[in-house]
Amino acid sequence: MRKKIRELGIEIGSLETGKHNQITDVPGVKVGHVTLKKELDEKTVIRTGVTAILPHGGNIFLQKVPASCFVLNGFGKTAGLVQVEELGVMESPIMLTNTFSVGTVWQGTLEYLMEQNQEIGDTTSSVNIVVGECNDSYLNTVHFPVIEKEHAKLAIEQAVFDVEEGAVGAGTGTMCFGYKGGIGSSSRIIHGGIYTVGALVLSNFGKREELCIAQYRKPSFDETEIPNGSIMIIVATNAPLSSRQLKRLAKRAAFGLARTGSHIHHGSGDIIIAFSNGYTIPHFSESSYYQLPPLIRDDDPLMNELFQAAIESTEEAILNSLTMAETTTGRNGRIGEAIPYDLFQ
Amino acid sequence: MRKKIRELGIEIGSLETGKHNQITDVPGVKVGHVTLKKELDEKTVIRTGVTAILPHGGNIFLQKVPASCFVLNGFGKTAGLVQVEELGVMESPIMLTNTFSVGTVWQGTLEYLMEQNQEIGDTTSSVNIVVGECNDSYLNTVHFPVIEKEHAKLAIEQAVFDVEEGAVGAGTGTMCFGYKGGIGSSSRIIHGGIYTVGALVLSNFGKREELCIAQYRKPSFDETEIPNGSIMIIVATNAPLSSRQLKRLAKRAAFGLARTGSHIHHGSGDIIIAFSNGYTIPHFSESSYYQLPPLIRDDDPLMNELFQAAIESTEEAILNSLTMAETTTGRNGRIGEAIPYDLFQ
Amino acid sequence: MRKKIRELGIEIGSLETGKHNQITDVPGVKVGHVTLKKELDEKTVIRTGVTAILPHGGNIFLQKVPASCFVLNGFGKTAGLVQVEELGVMESPIMLTNTFSVGTVWQGTLEYLMEQNQEIGDTTSSVNIVVGECNDSYLNTVHFPVIEKEHAKLAIEQAVFDVEEGAVGAGTGTMCFGYKGGIGSSSRIIHGGIYTVGALVLSNFGKREELCIAQYRKPSFDETEIPNGSIMIIVATNAPLSSRQLKRLAKRAAFGLARTGSHIHHGSGDIIIAFSNGYTIPHFSESSYYQLPPLIRDDDPLMNELFQAAIESTEEAILNSLTMAETTTGRNGRIGEAIPYDLFQ
Amino acid sequence: MRKKIRELGIEIGSLETGKHNQITDVPGVKVGHVTLKKELDEKTVIRTGVTAILPHGGNIFLQKVPASCFVLNGFGKTAGLVQVEELGVMESPIMLTNTFSVGTVWQGTLEYLMEQNQEIGDTTSSVNIVVGECNDSYLNTVHFPVIEKEHAKLAIEQAVFDVEEGAVGAGTGTMCFGYKGGIGSSSRIIHGGIYTVGALVLSNFGKREELCIAQYRKPSFDETEIPNGSIMIIVATNAPLSSRQLKRLAKRAAFGLARTGSHIHHGSGDIIIAFSNGYTIPHFSESSYYQLPPLIRDDDPLMNELFQAAIESTEEAILNSLTMAETTTGRNGRIGEAIPYDLFQ
Repeated sequence: MRKKIRELGIEIGSLETGKHNQITDVPGVKVGHVTLKKELDEKTVIRTGVTAILPHGGNIFLQKVPASCFVLNGFGKTAGLVQVEELGVMESPIMLTNTFSVGTVWQGTLEYLMEQNQEIGDTTSSVNIVVGECNDSYLNTVHFPVIEKEHAKLAIEQAVFDVEEGAVGAGTGTMCFGYKGGIGSSSRIIHGGIYTVGALVLSNFGKREELCIAQYRKPSFDETEIPNGSIMIIVATNAPLSSRQLKRLAKRAAFGLARTGSHIHHGSGDIIIAFSNGYTIPHFSESSYYQLPPLIRDDDPLMNELFQAAIESTEEAILNSLTMAETTTGRNGRIGEAIPYDLFQ
Repeated sequence: MRKKIRELGIEIGSLETGKHNQITDVPGVKVGHVTLKKELDEKTVIRTGVTAILPHGGNIFLQKVPASCFVLNGFGKTAGLVQVEELGVMESPIMLTNTFSVGTVWQGTLEYLMEQNQEIGDTTSSVNIVVGECNDSYLNTVHFPVIEKEHAKLAIEQAVFDVEEGAVGAGTGTMCFGYKGGIGSSSRIIHGGIYTVGALVLSNFGKREELCIAQYRKPSFDETEIPNGSIMIIVATNAPLSSRQLKRLAKRAAFGLARTGSHIHHGSGDIIIAFSNGYTIPHFSESSYYQLPPLIRDDDPLMNELFQAAIESTEEAILNSLTMAETTTGRNGRIGEAIPYDLFQ
Repeated sequence: MRKKIRELGIEIGSLETGKHNQITDVPGVKVGHVTLKKELDEKTVIRTGVTAILPHGGNIFLQKVPASCFVLNGFGKTAGLVQVEELGVMESPIMLTNTFSVGTVWQGTLEYLMEQNQEIGDTTSSVNIVVGECNDSYLNTVHFPVIEKEHAKLAIEQAVFDVEEGAVGAGTGTMCFGYKGGIGSSSRIIHGGIYTVGALVLSNFGKREELCIAQYRKPSFDETEIPNGSIMIIVATNAPLSSRQLKRLAKRAAFGLARTGSHIHHGSGDIIIAFSNGYTIPHFSESSYYQLPPLIRDDDPLMNELFQAAIESTEEAILNSLTMAETTTGRNGRIGEAIPYDLFQ
Repeated sequence: MRKKIRELGIEIGSLETGKHNQITDVPGVKVGHVTLKKELDEKTVIRTGVTAILPHGGNIFLQKVPASCFVLNGFGKTAGLVQVEELGVMESPIMLTNTFSVGTVWQGTLEYLMEQNQEIGDTTSSVNIVVGECNDSYLNTVHFPVIEKEHAKLAIEQAVFDVEEGAVGAGTGTMCFGYKGGIGSSSRIIHGGIYTVGALVLSNFGKREELCIAQYRKPSFDETEIPNGSIMIIVATNAPLSSRQLKRLAKRAAFGLARTGSHIHHGSGDIIIAFSNGYTIPHFSESSYYQLPPLIRDDDPLMNELFQAAIESTEEAILNSLTMAETTTGRNGRIGEAIPYDLFQ
């Protein structure tokens, strides 16, 4: 039974966590996983999946959320960021999968959204889909196309408030700091619980010697075989922020990554997406205008608290992706070893 | 028999065109189309396709080209730009298709590249695929998923030096300035032919009253039904430029669009991708270094000529996409009327 | 007596102009010039100045306006854009001057703002000043430091609703399309006057053969002596837009420049700044929040009208900078010839 | 006598430092300070200055260096970044000063460069000057304009290889983590000394409780009076990198900041500038081309080492800015306390 890092007695930062210490502490956010593990033949070992983050419980196409992103290192294939940057909104679930299945997951998510919304495909409507990825080819036979469009739909439909962490979903086969990584999550509340910031990561980067929390241990295997890693970081909040302010939040999340020891390797596609579900922007409107709620002033102390919350929850989410991941065997007889807890003592 | 705008007696700009006045005048560039036209039932009329632009005749994954992009208006779903911006290289053909088939074409192109390159999918290699799109739903039943992965491969394999223009490939169903648009191309040579700049566009934007070259004619139909348009602009050159300089070229291409009368409508995803095949960057190397050839100085008059060539070839390519497109019937009994040549007199 | 281009019978675009066809048709906007013309000795001929654009009649530091910018070609020395991009607000007048006086004008504007606002310089307040520039060294002995801090203050204090155009203020010595350029302005109203968009330019770019509105005339002098040109474009509106939307407006203004024939030469620092005074953001607040007014929806037809207004008013402002500028003699016996009106017939 | 953090027995990271553990370990780099400390009257206490970083020993205008920047948090007034981004070169020393003296230092640096280079101010030449700043108003009476143009020139002329650290130059009055900050520097060598990366910071950010290396101590004073802080980070290397690659290096330097505990407060203008003097780009050339030396491949392990070196040297430079700074009294009877060394035990 794996544990979150707090259960190991280690606290990250000084802010209070949300009730479940997960991204879903942000009211309305749900997360779904499809985990694929099978041995098709000797050379084809499947350790991969899909993860869907739903910004709120409603119809995300009809009720878009403000969003932004920050590309820390653009060696990555994430689709959909061009429109997020232009319009400052997200209108699809955020989908995560392996590097070679971006197109399929994109297409499956489109089908899901079209089924929900007849107006997509009509003359006046398209929809922008966001799909992020990590390369799980150390354990997973990534070039074998096992992900189907149905898996994207299933991940969305299976979304729940209780996030499974570790070697699940898109994180089934990923490696982090030379140990088994995957999905991790954490949250912070500020100002007596008035606002929540949550982070979910798909971790797939780093070498053992780089991990900051643990003392350096000589790698027990040749880490050079681990593929160019990456990390996808999703930051959610219910604080009312504009897309410009969400970009500021996204940049702070990068600092959470920094504190775990990452050197942002050349081959690590490190991408952060931030959204708020504190308000929504309707797809249809009879008005020429849209009314935002009062937004938090940039110079208010609340903003610095939000920044701190983004940093702390991201750092802790990454560590949780390690401490929650089970040892996972993979292709070529490789073993993604669960990080031993004695490293944290 | 449709004609290019020069055959109608109209010259754009002052620089000399390349031999065929197409993007393929840049030595090595090839273009392939797959055109899909069928009536599946009364309500399902297919007018769509795929277009592939190959930067050179070799293996683009093994011999990458310097590249950059400029997002003029990011209401678009183009995939692959994140990595192009980070690394300044293109390592796949540039694929164009309809808005709802980005994922499928992405996936088909990946399969093509994996077949050509066994190392993709291995531990150390991923590949970045660029897919641009326009929404052809005025004439095409875009929500019917007729594009298959095979069509992406076919478009690549069928690439030739003699570019078909008009209502073909990804341009089969697009509309431009209220007339039938589609694929258009043009080129310029500078400095006595020492360098060539070529443009290829997929045109799908604008209203009749906005077209600059022709006098305003009262629209003969309700243009409000035409979907949010877009334009994809591909600029190629054999001039040795860095990715930073190619971004400068991409920005100039936008000025070619401006001169046709575009107002860059909110819903028009206007995206420019520029590459040079004047040199390549090898995927594999035994050296820690790579040697660029001598690059053109930013302050050399040659640079301004290249800028002018990008503007002129883009403007002319857009006009060619109009003058070369045949009248095309589409769904709902709609007609994409070929632009009448008397408008140009 | 020089005329605006409309007085020459040429109309640009299809939207109605504001009452005075100037940026000051946007209610509250004022513009002030300081024009410096003197011959200090044979080699030191001064033809330069300062122009100040005031976003509204109040205290701009205390009541900031939403703003954004678009750097079309960054060969320029404009100061202050970093903070505009981060916070999406403007808190100083927009100052224009020659390339070698950016620091002095920056410092003079700071002193002006400190005199008006005691809190600047206190522990918690700094102020971000925006200064744009053009290189007027064809006519002006630019390396002679004639601009003083007092000129910046004077330009602000002298701001009026009736904008002087042509060879005045920062445009006293600039050249455009091989003729005398300078300050030009124009405006558009949309939706029956509900909103106004105004543009003011400082023009200093282009060659005679590039000018689109006139037929090509063989240059009467060696244009290669004209320095690397530039253009500063200021777009104002009272439409309620966010900073993200103002960036979209700024990009459209570039299309107005495109239509005059610019090739965006390497050495031309082409920078657009857009602001709205439809609402303000107070420097001091007792609340942790700020309430924006209803903003125009990106997908509302009003937005496309605003885009068109930005294009048309920018194009016309540039042409006005030509038609309003008087012939101006300069250093080295050079003559900046006023554009002859017969070119427009 | 203050010490560098290594002298306190604390090592940051795992790479070897350069000979002097300063930015000047990068061959050719020099740094000059002008430090201004005086009490003009009871209310006017001057604790400020100017720092100049010279990329190489030659004429920087004639021999430009490749450069880039990364704006982590744009609440800052740094001038000159627009052109650095467009052209990828630096052609002036990098100047640092207080927030209210950017214009004066800009102007003084211009005068210095014009004296060295007669061609500046001629028709065809301007020069782009980079000036960064921090708000030292906690200790310094910043609104009193004590910095003169001569101070900029003097800082350049006084540049030496042996960098003074602590409360000197632009760091005379700055505060960091609630203690006296200022100038700090560090360096790393990679690959057996083949390349050096050096960092110099001007530190002015953070609260005591945020400092990571020391255990939290209750602040002994009201930190809310400390102005919105900032940090300027300059990263130098002699490794042959393109401007695109230098942007990658600049982003990594941000991670060094992250590790010291920064939360990137709203009001902290955190800006990184990176340059290489491994090659230069001549201002004058008889050729239309420029030849770069072999550049380091992005996917070579050397690149990751350079990234790590940027992170480590930045982190250590920040800590050195603390451990090297002497206690400094300031305006309003304030005391900028030198960080006590027992915090590091």
